[in-house]
Amino acid sequence: MGDVSERERKILVAVDEGEESLYALSWCLRNVISQNSKDTLILLYARPPRPIYTAMDGTGYLFSADIMATMERHSRDVAAAIVEKAKKLCKDLNNVKVETRVESGDARDVICEMVEKLGADVLVMGCHGYGPIKRALIGSVSNHCAKIVKCPILIVKKPKDSAA
Amino acid sequence: MGDVSERERKILVAVDEGEESLYALSWCLRNVISQNSKDTLILLYARPPRPIYTAMDGTGYLFSADIMATMERHSRDVAAAIVEKAKKLCKDLNNVKVETRVESGDARDVICEMVEKLGADVLVMGCHGYGPIKRALIGSVSNHCAKIVKCPILIVKKPKDSAA
Repeated sequence: MGDVSERERKILVAVDEGEESLYALSWCLRNVISQNSKDTLILLYARPPRPIYTAMDGTGYLFSADIMATMERHSRDVAAAIVEKAKKLCKDLNNVKVETRVESGDARDVICEMVEKLGADVLVMGCHGYGPIKRALIGSVSNHCAKIVKCPILIVKKPKDSAA
Repeated sequence: MGDVSERERKILVAVDEGEESLYALSWCLRNVISQNSKDTLILLYARPPRPIYTAMDGTGYLFSADIMATMERHSRDVAAAIVEKAKKLCKDLNNVKVETRVESGDARDVICEMVEKLGADVLVMGCHGYGPIKRALIGSVSNHCAKIVKCPILIVKKPKDSAA
């Protein structure tokens, strides 16, 4: 109690293209991260793995290596834009180290693995990592992570009427 | 950011007889509550509802009113002891108002209802509100609450080798 500023914590925030995750990050910045702390904030984006079927277009033709490379480049650009947007939200943190990570894979696996690998002290995430249909089928990402990760997990839902 | 001390937050912590919930409270005190904040910390205990079958003993005889009253008193004593133990953990908080609430009912319903009723800004709870069998049957309390409550929820798991 009162020793927040004395300890170094690794706070892993899962970000994605949705406003939920940016809201979760903002909430975390306001409520968990102290200005004077020596926290390290790690912004993690899980880049969706390229599905096998994208190697062929709808007519059954194989995409050329050129197109595949373009798609790959696009995916990397999207990832960079997302972590950059998240990083901008953290610009007012003076004493907090902000790192970004982009890992390829299913968000559920990537997040749980990175919590373990990086030794995160707390995982922060929004509630909706998937759309409503996928969510109904396989459950939310946060739900999955809450079951798997061993560290404290903060799940932040975005109120319907608020801005990120 | 940096405005934690200026805002008043209602932090609802669900406590029960398990060490998990006390660990969650401790973690919250160390990591979320700032010494200088004007937070209100509400310690909530859901007192299990008296099952109908306790009106009869194993041989089918009805318990007397005396025995029923004794059991009721015992349940209230247990509740008081639990919230008292939780309150002791908060004794070093100078500027934080600590309130206690005991509500009768299933923990899952009580917690979700009180979050709504009290307008909590964040819900903090341990992971295991039920034993392993009940948990396997109906899922964990935290899992349920994470789906229902609209405010941010912090689920803290107790590491196997740590004290509360």
